Amino acid sequence: MSKGDETRERIIAKAAELFNQRGLEGTSMADLMEATGLEKGGIYRHFPSKEAVAAEAFDYAWEAAFQERTRDLDSIPGSVERLKHLIDNFVERRSSIPGGCPLLNTAIEADDGNPVLRERARQALGKWQDLLISVVNQGIQRREISSGVDPGRLAMLIIGSLEGALMISRLERNRAALLAARSHLDDYLDKEVRAHTRRSEP
Amino acid sequence: MSKGDETRERIIAKAAELFNQRGLEGTSMADLMEATGLEKGGIYRHFPSKEAVAAEAFDYAWEAAFQERTRDLDSIPGSVERLKHLIDNFVERRSSIPGGCPLLNTAIEADDGNPVLRERARQALGKWQDLLISVVNQGIQRREISSGVDPGRLAMLIIGSLEGALMISRLERNRAALLAARSHLDDYLDKEVRAHTRRSEP
Repeated sequence: MSKGDETRERIIAKAAELFNQRGLEGTSMADLMEATGLEKGGIYRHFPSKEAVAAEAFDYAWEAAFQERTRDLDSIPGSVERLKHLIDNFVERRSSIPGGCPLLNTAIEADDGNPVLRERARQALGKWQDLLISVVNQGIQRREISSGVDPGRLAMLIIGSLEGALMISRLERNRAALLAARSHLDDYLDKEVRAHTRRSEP
Repeated sequence: MSKGDETRERIIAKAAELFNQRGLEGTSMADLMEATGLEKGGIYRHFPSKEAVAAEAFDYAWEAAFQERTRDLDSIPGSVERLKHLIDNFVERRSSIPGGCPLLNTAIEADDGNPVLRERARQALGKWQDLLISVVNQGIQRREISSGVDPGRLAMLIIGSLEGALMISRLERNRAALLAARSHLDDYLDKEVRAHTRRSEP
């Protein structure tokens, strides 16, 4: 990695921490300069604007969060268990970048605001939905998940329940809402999503 | 209402629209001056700081949202139907103040930030939880809701599912996530929350 690339990476990593906690509007170029130890020109050499830093910082923060959420997924054989594992990771694992979920933070700040960040958040949501949908589709193919389940709808339910619970948990500074969401979703997966076992046709 | 009170109300109403869409950090005193047509001194005559305007504006926006969410609640007799009605209102009714849910917006911006706004959001969440809990408790007393239901946990599930779905719906600019959350919650209320009817003891 060249010296310039290293500096660019360092700006993104530091910026990701600031933007994920304070948002685009709550983070100034002065904050970025202080966090990176660079002059304004040193940042503008790599990025045309604060918004451009924020867009890269979002992708970086989302990548870190997504990695935690999908950790050890491949080691789980059953499809319903894979969904439960993804839920567990969301509840139990924290990304190295403080400030909560980058998707939730950026979606809320950008839904009436910055179109570049809004599009990054939309892409991130799409990636997470696609992963959940692929697990559900595989489960339907393997007959581990009931064929009546709508994969896109289930993905939305899981993501919405977890993100909403995270908002409550962060506001209340306790895990009750996250634990309640997990136990509700796990129960739902067992009762309504898992295919009922039956003997195969002769 | 005195002329001064009228001006104060006007500042709060205009500020509520700005803050709910752009957040505390995204709204400047210049924005407030432009929206209200007042000089800086005219605003500072009523509020000591931008943060103080934002705190009152939050309560104003939350009150408007809460009013829509609880509309016609008293006309619904059954407890499970009352919960469904509250969910319906959330999905179908929009507050007159644009920008989405003030609780969600402020919780996300203030969870690592402004303690005054964070406390207002916590109070708002508490008020909504208390309303749901009182409906559930009444339902348990009337034997319309199963005695095994934990009112606080159910309140958190409903709020978290709806707020998370709203985040997705606003990001995707369609209602799919909200509709999925409603249909999921309604189904859950019927299957797991509603008390099974049985003949009363002789």
